[in-house]
Amino acid sequence: MKHFLLIAHKAVTCGDYSLNDMPGSAGRMDVLCRCVNTAFFLSHDLRRDVHVHLLLLGEPCPGRLVRFEGAHLRSLNPDERSSGALIKKALLREPSATESRSTPGVNTRTATLPELLGEFTEKSYGLVYLREDGEDLRETEDFVDDTVFILGDHTGVTEEEENLILGAGARLVSTGPLSLHADHCITLIHNELDRREGGKR
Amino acid sequence: MKHFLLIAHKAVTCGDYSLNDMPGSAGRMDVLCRCVNTAFFLSHDLRRDVHVHLLLLGEPCPGRLVRFEGAHLRSLNPDERSSGALIKKALLREPSATESRSTPGVNTRTATLPELLGEFTEKSYGLVYLREDGEDLRETEDFVDDTVFILGDHTGVTEEEENLILGAGARLVSTGPLSLHADHCITLIHNELDRREGGKR
Repeated sequence: MKHFLLIAHKAVTCGDYSLNDMPGSAGRMDVLCRCVNTAFFLSHDLRRDVHVHLLLLGEPCPGRLVRFEGAHLRSLNPDERSSGALIKKALLREPSATESRSTPGVNTRTATLPELLGEFTEKSYGLVYLREDGEDLRETEDFVDDTVFILGDHTGVTEEEENLILGAGARLVSTGPLSLHADHCITLIHNELDRREGGKR
Repeated sequence: MKHFLLIAHKAVTCGDYSLNDMPGSAGRMDVLCRCVNTAFFLSHDLRRDVHVHLLLLGEPCPGRLVRFEGAHLRSLNPDERSSGALIKKALLREPSATESRSTPGVNTRTATLPELLGEFTEKSYGLVYLREDGEDLRETEDFVDDTVFILGDHTGVTEEEENLILGAGARLVSTGPLSLHADHCITLIHNELDRREGGKR
């Protein structure tokens, strides 16, 4: 399984936002929508071996997790409004520490970054943190089957979060010479993994 | 200059569509919006050395070109509605064979694929057609400075169009082992060019 963890500092944590204003009043929810798109979509197919973990840290209830599981997803289309609507449905649930399914393949609960990192570590998942000064993605050793690629939103990752991520043993990896949007990084990660799996590297 | 030509068979050619229904009544306009995003956006910056040529072939006036020039673009944000609004403004103009500027960095006129290919050839632009069975993008010789990367929409490229493209001398290039959305291909092309330009290949 391939995992992508997105840390979204401004994304609102209540589902009363308008799909017509995701970059504004929803706290750059559009960034997360594009990440969901690139994590799952192939041409006329979905990547079923992917989990996307969206950690939303905006108001009014900072610390909500919306988790997309490729194997169970239904009703996801490539446009931003489609994933935005699924996130909205998840966030319309009452915040709870107990995970519940809001729509097929989409689950939600409350969570913090330390909790998530602890859970990944407990399951022996590999951790990779995308940063411009990391090792070149094309030159890395193969990743373990369950690897979590950790990305920041448009504001990046705070120093405190970065310390937690590196403290949990994450490898630093870079996708190339320029600083890119998170969804573009996901495309590049998938392509590298596709090539290794297809023997075309 | 890097050029991306998108052939959009269903995208409507009048600007009276709703930004709330770009995948539906606007004929998968969302596909084009995502291509504009990936062609231009860096993290907190725009790629100024890019032109995007959107060839719209849907009803009611098949054969309209909307051309984005990175050097002159203003008011473009990464979300789909933002580029969708700029395309809409261009299409609200009366169709004309004479190119006119609808907003800064966005121009429009009527056009056909043979006309466009003829113009590119006349200017000695390189032509690259993205197809799964092409040469691996990572293994190609360097591209000439003005290269046009030609991509189809969600319906691909018709046999007739493909014959025109190959007849114009386009090289066949593949981005990897799986068939991807056009915007994801653009990300991969940019990354390869970024690496070559940054000496990090």
